[in-house]
Amino acid sequence: MKTVVLKFGGTSVGNIERIKKICKIVSSYKKKKFKVLVVSSAMSGVTNDLINKSKKISDNFDTAEYDALLSSGEQISCALIAGQLNHIGIKSRSWQSWQLPIITEGPHKNARINNIVVKNLKKFLGIGGVPIITGFQGVNKDFRLTTIGRSGSDATAIMLAKFIKADECIIYTDVDGVYTTDPRDHNKAKKIKKIYYDEMLEMASLGSKVMQPSSVQDAKLNNIEIKVKSSFINKTGTSITASKKDFSNQIITGISSTKSNAKITIVGVKDRPGVAASIFEPLSKNLINVDMVVQNISLDGKETDLTFTIKSEDLKKTEKLIKQNKKISYKKLSFDRGVSKVSIIGVGMITTPGITYRMFQALASKKINILVISTSEIKISVLVSARHVKKAVAALHKEFKLD
Amino acid sequence: MKTVVLKFGGTSVGNIERIKKICKIVSSYKKKKFKVLVVSSAMSGVTNDLINKSKKISDNFDTAEYDALLSSGEQISCALIAGQLNHIGIKSRSWQSWQLPIITEGPHKNARINNIVVKNLKKFLGIGGVPIITGFQGVNKDFRLTTIGRSGSDATAIMLAKFIKADECIIYTDVDGVYTTDPRDHNKAKKIKKIYYDEMLEMASLGSKVMQPSSVQDAKLNNIEIKVKSSFINKTGTSITASKKDFSNQIITGISSTKSNAKITIVGVKDRPGVAASIFEPLSKNLINVDMVVQNISLDGKETDLTFTIKSEDLKKTEKLIKQNKKISYKKLSFDRGVSKVSIIGVGMITTPGITYRMFQALASKKINILVISTSEIKISVLVSARHVKKAVAALHKEFKLD
Repeated sequence: MKTVVLKFGGTSVGNIERIKKICKIVSSYKKKKFKVLVVSSAMSGVTNDLINKSKKISDNFDTAEYDALLSSGEQISCALIAGQLNHIGIKSRSWQSWQLPIITEGPHKNARINNIVVKNLKKFLGIGGVPIITGFQGVNKDFRLTTIGRSGSDATAIMLAKFIKADECIIYTDVDGVYTTDPRDHNKAKKIKKIYYDEMLEMASLGSKVMQPSSVQDAKLNNIEIKVKSSFINKTGTSITASKKDFSNQIITGISSTKSNAKITIVGVKDRPGVAASIFEPLSKNLINVDMVVQNISLDGKETDLTFTIKSEDLKKTEKLIKQNKKISYKKLSFDRGVSKVSIIGVGMITTPGITYRMFQALASKKINILVISTSEIKISVLVSARHVKKAVAALHKEFKLD
Repeated sequence: MKTVVLKFGGTSVGNIERIKKICKIVSSYKKKKFKVLVVSSAMSGVTNDLINKSKKISDNFDTAEYDALLSSGEQISCALIAGQLNHIGIKSRSWQSWQLPIITEGPHKNARINNIVVKNLKKFLGIGGVPIITGFQGVNKDFRLTTIGRSGSDATAIMLAKFIKADECIIYTDVDGVYTTDPRDHNKAKKIKKIYYDEMLEMASLGSKVMQPSSVQDAKLNNIEIKVKSSFINKTGTSITASKKDFSNQIITGISSTKSNAKITIVGVKDRPGVAASIFEPLSKNLINVDMVVQNISLDGKETDLTFTIKSEDLKKTEKLIKQNKKISYKKLSFDRGVSKVSIIGVGMITTPGITYRMFQALASKKINILVISTSEIKISVLVSARHVKKAVAALHKEFKLD
């Protein structure tokens, strides 16, 4: 008998009708003789409502109480799912994180799952029951509730799959899989059937919102194969799996793009050791994420130009921080709000030469100027004018035969 | 240093503004050097919303999951209270029932508190902290969440006061105390400063909605003095306390009345042993509560008339059940929808003769006809026509010097 962990996100359990619907999905696995465990997020809207309540009290709301507050959301959804399953004749019960327990370590609001005690779950599976487990939370060594940050329920499902030794871990969400590029912007986007952890990690950190990078990392570290599927329509989803060196002919798996970045160039910076650190230190302290960085080669060894990108919304703050910075001297600051990053991702590029050239050539043929380039082993990113981003993605999608 | 348990009801924590207000009450006790513990209900509306969700799934929603579902309400309110207290500089933390634990026994939805482990609460009080404890719930021996029925948070506060050996237990609610009669109907109603458990029990079971009888009974059994106060206006409330035989001159403490009862008379019932049981058995099985019962003396030993009262809304069902009942034979059924029960309550009547006479005389002087009479040690109830109930309460309020 195979064991499967099904994880349902907030929109999948967003109201009673949807809860009834996902219980039918659970039922279909039971009919196929699976041992089924469910991990659920809070009903969509509930967590935000609780966060808003805490904000009405304080922006520095006590973090331990914040976790106690937010944990109630999954308690509600899990009790409702278990109630519905019992109602339709499937033996089920909810387990709150402290009842197993799910043991976490690390700070409140951002804890990590250390262990999940599965003894009672196994017993319940043994008598044909379907355990419903609260996602996103656990208890620390002081037996206080902790939450595990954004996308926490995915992490709960992945860790549960690990500790229960599940054969499958399926993430049910409001999209039906991972696409070659954003299907809302590009009508030629295609669903990816199989993607490797590292590719998904690049996709995830480049803005594909299907899964948080930390969850993909958890799956990779524990070698848990994940499927991403829609809880609304019954279609094959996307498998996220380990690279097994059986590369297909597909070199590039997906293309991602950002919408609104800003590019900053500091012209004529006095070039001395540690100048980049002096520039970026105050930004980092203010939680401004610097993405692509290019430093021109300083020909005379005295001055250099430094270009980097940030999120558009951070531009004002960044400008202020640079102007206040007394550790650096420069000639001029210049800004460009309207830039976007376009990236091609695929493990295939490790073994296939000439990808960079093909990328640049495809963009050049459409008269798209490349402003900045950055690369990793399985990814090439270029910065282009935001007004060219759709055209760029389309050109690359065609060039790498994803259409 | 005195220890006080403060209990806040659902309306008292109904929104963030109100939570801020009750935290000022907590602060005032801290300034008076009290050791303070708080028990809170769920924010008003939250529990009903959760119940409605469960009903959308099933009217027979799994009771264990129902308790898990509803328990989330107090987790939310308690985390918010603790968050606000920390925000205004008062060291505080919330304790969910399972963290102490609060141990219950008995069935789901209707468990009873057996024990509260107060070790960690004492430690926290010792360092000046204010513990916030979830009312209405506990965990059973299987470590599953249980709820303790209507008015459960009052019971939590009273049991906590017992186990922590508190000097005071104050029930903060949306009324400012217990009144001699319903102040919405009678403008001469006065707040009672002190009322004995037994009187309060009679008041409570006769429809005064301030406290549930079971909570008053808990307080009586454990000899916990309760104060009922308003969380909205700062006024002396009502103390509910043990009878100490130091009766004041006040003979009658309060007057209660019901709004809509129905009186049923079964005329010419064949009088044989067990006939009353035969009549009431099907009513009891259908959860119809029979209140006052009068059986005429059967002069010939063959036939008798039986009169009893029920809630008006139960009249149709009751009529049907009697007509279906094949164990009894009778001549006629008669109904009176428009009746009310008026009761005077006071431990003073035990030692003061002539109260019954004064009551009947006061009603007679206003030409109010008494339909049925029933008495207990500290209570006399009469059934009158519903259109006379206001006049009757006013007359009795004056007669027993409550004006």
